[in-house]
Amino acid sequence: MLTSIFVIAITAEAMSGALAAGRRNMDLFGVALIAFITALGGGTVRDMLLGNYPVTWTQHPSYIYLTIGAGLLTILIARFMQRLNRIFLILDAMGLVAFTIIGCNVALKLGYETPVVIMAGITTGIFGGILRDIMCNRTPQVLRHELYASVSFLVAILYLVLRVLGVSDEINTLICFCFGLTLRLAAIHWKLSLPVFSYSPGRWGD
Amino acid sequence: MLTSIFVIAITAEAMSGALAAGRRNMDLFGVALIAFITALGGGTVRDMLLGNYPVTWTQHPSYIYLTIGAGLLTILIARFMQRLNRIFLILDAMGLVAFTIIGCNVALKLGYETPVVIMAGITTGIFGGILRDIMCNRTPQVLRHELYASVSFLVAILYLVLRVLGVSDEINTLICFCFGLTLRLAAIHWKLSLPVFSYSPGRWGD
Amino acid sequence: MLTSIFVIAITAEAMSGALAAGRRNMDLFGVALIAFITALGGGTVRDMLLGNYPVTWTQHPSYIYLTIGAGLLTILIARFMQRLNRIFLILDAMGLVAFTIIGCNVALKLGYETPVVIMAGITTGIFGGILRDIMCNRTPQVLRHELYASVSFLVAILYLVLRVLGVSDEINTLICFCFGLTLRLAAIHWKLSLPVFSYSPGRWGD
Repeated sequence: MLTSIFVIAITAEAMSGALAAGRRNMDLFGVALIAFITALGGGTVRDMLLGNYPVTWTQHPSYIYLTIGAGLLTILIARFMQRLNRIFLILDAMGLVAFTIIGCNVALKLGYETPVVIMAGITTGIFGGILRDIMCNRTPQVLRHELYASVSFLVAILYLVLRVLGVSDEINTLICFCFGLTLRLAAIHWKLSLPVFSYSPGRWGD
Repeated sequence: MLTSIFVIAITAEAMSGALAAGRRNMDLFGVALIAFITALGGGTVRDMLLGNYPVTWTQHPSYIYLTIGAGLLTILIARFMQRLNRIFLILDAMGLVAFTIIGCNVALKLGYETPVVIMAGITTGIFGGILRDIMCNRTPQVLRHELYASVSFLVAILYLVLRVLGVSDEINTLICFCFGLTLRLAAIHWKLSLPVFSYSPGRWGD
Repeated sequence: MLTSIFVIAITAEAMSGALAAGRRNMDLFGVALIAFITALGGGTVRDMLLGNYPVTWTQHPSYIYLTIGAGLLTILIARFMQRLNRIFLILDAMGLVAFTIIGCNVALKLGYETPVVIMAGITTGIFGGILRDIMCNRTPQVLRHELYASVSFLVAILYLVLRVLGVSDEINTLICFCFGLTLRLAAIHWKLSLPVFSYSPGRWGD
């Protein structure tokens, strides 16, 4: 189940990358590259942090084709994106949860301690979006808008707690999906967000 | 041959990094660092992605001196850069081709599959420039202007096709250079570029 | 001694990260993440460059709690930061020196050559701040203002020279601290900086 959701997820992430590249008037190559990095960058950073070589996507070339294909396809359907917005946000939320669980599992398998496992889950969940925004020269959206990174954090916690409680992996994953999706979509609907910290420059300002 | 072109190439890349740093009014240290990262960053990212340790430049300290030296020298000759522009663009194009072929060879030696080999070639070819632009807080130029990343992509494809056809490495490299240089310089001359994807913000805008 | 200074240092770096995040109106999660990356990102980049796995902080979860805690605490005391400015700058300078020496030691233990050891020291010293600025979408401050990266460079050189001269590690560290702190604080007080390279766009401008 996780694998098929993963495939849906990297497609959705690739599309969000393509749209961000389009906002910066990139060429076809830029669109393809940003789509690829948005979809697979989170897992790549996780693998590099944990020393988990070979990096996952290098062993699954189909992911390369899929994300680049999804990115380029987005150009054709961009005009409908506004109307597809709701579906898109649901797919993106599914991706966030799937990425987080997968990231936790990778770190668990390598024997890392709990806090590192949580960091690995979050990294997989949100770093694709962060790399997308860095490459498109804007402040990472996932750290500013409605609950997003926090959903990844809470899903990681919930997954590990249920695991310690002996819940089977399938049921655990299912519960995490229900929880994560509900929370993320509720956050979008009611514009829930964490408190924001606003600070005006003193000494270190630019 | 590839090695001597590589040396020319990292010099040219270091100079382009120094100029970008100068546009952001960086100090001498910043110029040296951006020059170094622009010249050797592509290969570094490739090595880290492929798990190719130790990273190449750590085994060739002379590359450190060369790129930093070229970066600092650029400050002295910056006023002539406008006039040297044509030579500079040719050196840069040579670097793009050399980096791409070297990147492919590293991935081939490590036994990666074809799509990963192509990604390794492109990463080596363009990621120095992408890191330069990220560090200088601008949208990566290589994804927006005349054919650049695409030249790297096509050179990687051509190199692998000729390799499968049994063409000797020397001749293969030579053909790739003729092709890549011609394509890149033609792109500059006739302002050839890929179609651009322009998308105006909806839900995910900043 | 180096360890306790390291703990103080990552706290100070985490706080500088939190303030930068506040300037971009990030939410609590963003503040915590930027604090973590600013404090531990330099060492992480160093470990990934040198292939020094597992990455240091993954073996010391307490560093994760400490930096995130310091980041969030900064929100509460931000209003006093202006007044605490002097202490903060001293802690930051101590961190710069401690990070540099620790980075050199890691590379020395792995048997890298001298120029790579120096690069490892500088990377540990300044890359946290560079990642902070990249994530907050601004040009890296450490490459533009009063001597900062150069202090890291000179401390690394001094440390290696004294080491070759047979000075004991403790005394070496002490001398480097006196030198580095004095230089950095003098640079702040008298606004000492490296010459700046300003270049106006020609062909490669954006």
